[in-house]
Amino acid sequence: MRRLLLLAAGLLVLPAFLFAQIPEDSDIRAVFSDMYVSDGMLLNAHKDPKNWLLYGRDYANTRYSPLKQINQGNVKDLVVKWAFSFGVLEGQDSQAVVFNGRIFVTTSFNRVYSLDGRNGDVEWSYKRDLPSDVFPHLCCDVNNKGLALYHNKAYLGTLDAHIVAFDMASGEEIWDVTTGDYKNSASHTGFPLAVDGKIITGTGGAEYGIRGWIVALDAETGKEVWRIWTIAGPDGPMLEATGKVYPDWQKQWGGDSWKTGGGSQWTGISYDPDLGSIFVPIGNPGPDFDGASRPGDNLFSNTTMVLNPDNGLLRYWFQYTPHDPWDYDGVNEVILADIDGRKVWLHADRNGHLYSIDRTNGRCLWVVEITEINWVTGFGDNCRPIVNPDYDPEVQGYGVVTMNIHPTLDGGKEWHPMAYSPKTNMVYVPTYNFGMDIEPLKQKWERGEWFLGAQVLRITDGNGSIRAHSASTGELIWENISQWPATSATVATGGGLVFFGGPDGIFRAADDETGEELWSFQTGTGIHGSPTTWSIGGTQYVGAVVGAGGGGLWPLHYGKWLSNHTKGGALFVFGLHD
Amino acid sequence: MRRLLLLAAGLLVLPAFLFAQIPEDSDIRAVFSDMYVSDGMLLNAHKDPKNWLLYGRDYANTRYSPLKQINQGNVKDLVVKWAFSFGVLEGQDSQAVVFNGRIFVTTSFNRVYSLDGRNGDVEWSYKRDLPSDVFPHLCCDVNNKGLALYHNKAYLGTLDAHIVAFDMASGEEIWDVTTGDYKNSASHTGFPLAVDGKIITGTGGAEYGIRGWIVALDAETGKEVWRIWTIAGPDGPMLEATGKVYPDWQKQWGGDSWKTGGGSQWTGISYDPDLGSIFVPIGNPGPDFDGASRPGDNLFSNTTMVLNPDNGLLRYWFQYTPHDPWDYDGVNEVILADIDGRKVWLHADRNGHLYSIDRTNGRCLWVVEITEINWVTGFGDNCRPIVNPDYDPEVQGYGVVTMNIHPTLDGGKEWHPMAYSPKTNMVYVPTYNFGMDIEPLKQKWERGEWFLGAQVLRITDGNGSIRAHSASTGELIWENISQWPATSATVATGGGLVFFGGPDGIFRAADDETGEELWSFQTGTGIHGSPTTWSIGGTQYVGAVVGAGGGGLWPLHYGKWLSNHTKGGALFVFGLHD
Repeated sequence: MRRLLLLAAGLLVLPAFLFAQIPEDSDIRAVFSDMYVSDGMLLNAHKDPKNWLLYGRDYANTRYSPLKQINQGNVKDLVVKWAFSFGVLEGQDSQAVVFNGRIFVTTSFNRVYSLDGRNGDVEWSYKRDLPSDVFPHLCCDVNNKGLALYHNKAYLGTLDAHIVAFDMASGEEIWDVTTGDYKNSASHTGFPLAVDGKIITGTGGAEYGIRGWIVALDAETGKEVWRIWTIAGPDGPMLEATGKVYPDWQKQWGGDSWKTGGGSQWTGISYDPDLGSIFVPIGNPGPDFDGASRPGDNLFSNTTMVLNPDNGLLRYWFQYTPHDPWDYDGVNEVILADIDGRKVWLHADRNGHLYSIDRTNGRCLWVVEITEINWVTGFGDNCRPIVNPDYDPEVQGYGVVTMNIHPTLDGGKEWHPMAYSPKTNMVYVPTYNFGMDIEPLKQKWERGEWFLGAQVLRITDGNGSIRAHSASTGELIWENISQWPATSATVATGGGLVFFGGPDGIFRAADDETGEELWSFQTGTGIHGSPTTWSIGGTQYVGAVVGAGGGGLWPLHYGKWLSNHTKGGALFVFGLHD
Repeated sequence: MRRLLLLAAGLLVLPAFLFAQIPEDSDIRAVFSDMYVSDGMLLNAHKDPKNWLLYGRDYANTRYSPLKQINQGNVKDLVVKWAFSFGVLEGQDSQAVVFNGRIFVTTSFNRVYSLDGRNGDVEWSYKRDLPSDVFPHLCCDVNNKGLALYHNKAYLGTLDAHIVAFDMASGEEIWDVTTGDYKNSASHTGFPLAVDGKIITGTGGAEYGIRGWIVALDAETGKEVWRIWTIAGPDGPMLEATGKVYPDWQKQWGGDSWKTGGGSQWTGISYDPDLGSIFVPIGNPGPDFDGASRPGDNLFSNTTMVLNPDNGLLRYWFQYTPHDPWDYDGVNEVILADIDGRKVWLHADRNGHLYSIDRTNGRCLWVVEITEINWVTGFGDNCRPIVNPDYDPEVQGYGVVTMNIHPTLDGGKEWHPMAYSPKTNMVYVPTYNFGMDIEPLKQKWERGEWFLGAQVLRITDGNGSIRAHSASTGELIWENISQWPATSATVATGGGLVFFGGPDGIFRAADDETGEELWSFQTGTGIHGSPTTWSIGGTQYVGAVVGAGGGGLWPLHYGKWLSNHTKGGALFVFGLHD
């Protein structure tokens, strides 16, 4: 209180630079600097139409923007305002985050650009000097999801398992902390969560049989605050209720299989400030396809873990695909929404289903299909899948090819985030609707080597779509089908639009109520990044990160498009024609 | 005549595919196919607003298009219609050539794309499998200027000194002919000239002390029709008037210096069908800067050679910079224009001057400055430069640094072609206005090694510009100055516009009478390629090839821009907003 009064006095008489010394009081301090993202700004990001500060714009991960300058009536007048070439190729999985007219975007190979949002001029840039032996440890291209903003810093997770903090204004490197051993296939490609003084993210590497972990660093110093395992074992993760590990962890992982149990986190994390919980989606078990080698449900693979952000203690969870032999990587994001008076999380999974989960306790409310499905015949208590043995590679046995399993390891829905519009009460889900032929194989784990436990022999013909489902019931409202899988995030806006890109290079806007395509633009390279929208000086912009690339199995899916499509790396920024 | 009658009958009753057998009668055959570029089409390219068929749009190399749908009044409504990512980085020196709605564009590393001009869809593509040991033999990045179109084929000159012919419609490789030894630094980066059944181009490599040559291949078979040396010696080139070599060739090149005399051709060649002559601009002598090692005028370096296209015999010529110790590479294009009733060629040279030459005899009509100049104090008979000894590195001697010579090796005007507008009777010249510090060095020639004969120690601060000069008098009409050199071609249109790009990534349109900038767009990477314009279905488009790169000395010029600019590779296609 005393400090507040002093500050109030200071406002009248002291030059602004003196306040550079004042610590912590972020909301007040923000008055003095246009390059300071306070806790209050993040907590209120959903009410701030101007900026795009977090992975899913807000802590709830909605990817909904209330902006409506660009709307159904005028979207036909949307044109490219400027473009920025990344100067580097391969998969571009990033997104523009925007604060007070400054754009921050990451690229393949861990480059960072801070751009003047008015014209694309580079304000600062960073090129990670990656060790040459990191690349064999990266399953799925040299990607990054984007930069977290917090207080005066911006945070990058690197392919060689560091977190780097930059001065947001100048790009000066403040600290660089090693979080894991990239030679043991640890890596950061996810979008770190900045919350309450901490930077929280997880590691990739399930395809190499790592045992996954989540780490929280002190945002100011980079010092580790807590770290938990994502795979249940004798040493964690710890349950908040008991202060002990999961009691039946040995039944979860037969033998020593927990030691190589996978469980990556490389997307984004949601946060509910009212519950004081973070919602951390955890990926597939290791080895990906060889279920027989890891008896049990394999917690906490394919699970959304609900954690106390202060200490990483586990409150509750929901596991989408127990004991997964299909690589139905549960790492997809969760959206926190209040639907019909109920606090839920919404999650569309690789396993081909959309879930609504009570986010106060992790109990499933409903589950619906989002693609063609044959691996499951129904659902039991708490939406536990009842597996169809005809499409279970483990039941078929080693060396037997199970044909035409729907969906593939990449879908249902791939990692590309969906959007939830409170305006329509719908989620807009990008889907992959293909089948796969799998032959499980017995594989010995070796440090830093691929550990899939199968050959993926074929991806069948299929299609993709953007699907709008009711957030109340899961009912399908509309579907916008494409020949190809949907390879970008969706964004929903107050203007009644849903934006999304595809591997055909085309960036599109559809009517949020009907799915009718209202506008499109050919960017010239496959779109794998996430669109975002923001405003500067009262003008709304939409940004699309473009550049084909991604997981190693893409050629199987994409043969017919990849043959005619080219790599790239750029940010296209769209606005209404003057 | 009999064949004509048969064809006329055939029009009525025979299916079109039968005519695939009919040889030669190109203008008639063109009736039957939309992918056949006849001799008549090329001869009349200047009257054909729809297509862009040749390097400079027409045989006269004007880079003037009569299209005026996009004009001074509406250019503010110019927007990107679509983009195409090349999937490869490094310098993009190419341009879109367009025939009947199909776009043909080459990229760095000798890729070729044929695109549907309506939407950028790839119709066919080609990726040259370049030998890994070619790269040390390329002085100035891995560039290409573009694809020649002739009859049913498209022609690519390759970095490893081949000419490849493709079926224009399908991309099928028809033939691939080796024209030189890339291990001896032969290379093709120029835009081949297609004329009267032949494909004509030259070799790069003057920076490695090659002795330059021009080759003409039979367009149908790839068989060599003729080949000449560009450096006067005992074995050519042959003068048409005498059937013998240049009589004083030993005075041109002291000692054996002719053997390593340079004289590349890697831009484009003009053609005057009335005179039956081709105008071939030849580059710098080798070694580039060590004049003392090659006594004499060093014909035909820095010369426009006027040749008989049937046999390569030399009719006459004009040499811009005799005995050049500055690397004032005379390879820049020539524009053929009829000015005030006189047949002239217009040429803006690296040496900082714009020339008007009588193209019936090679006599100079006038010469004017286009940048700051100090290497010359005046001009003698036939515009022969009178050298200022204070800025002549050879006079200063080996090991002595001559400071602040204006212009640099890259300008005056770099290779980027200028445009001539018959509407305004002006040429629009992209310029580099910088100075250089040179220290000449005695250097021994070794096969395949750099052979410059100097260190270029510094490029001074300077600027660039687009300059409009009267084509009648050379008088400067307007100048549009930029902080950076002008690194793209200009295009002038019937709509009263001049289009050009810069290393800042911005593509611009200016008023052709005043130079006032009327429109601009940030493409996000330096522009080094050549814009072109065309129409499809009655709609005018403007295409810009973008992607920073080029010669090895760029960092000296460009330090301040390159530090903040990124590589790229794309074609942006602009049209009026619907």
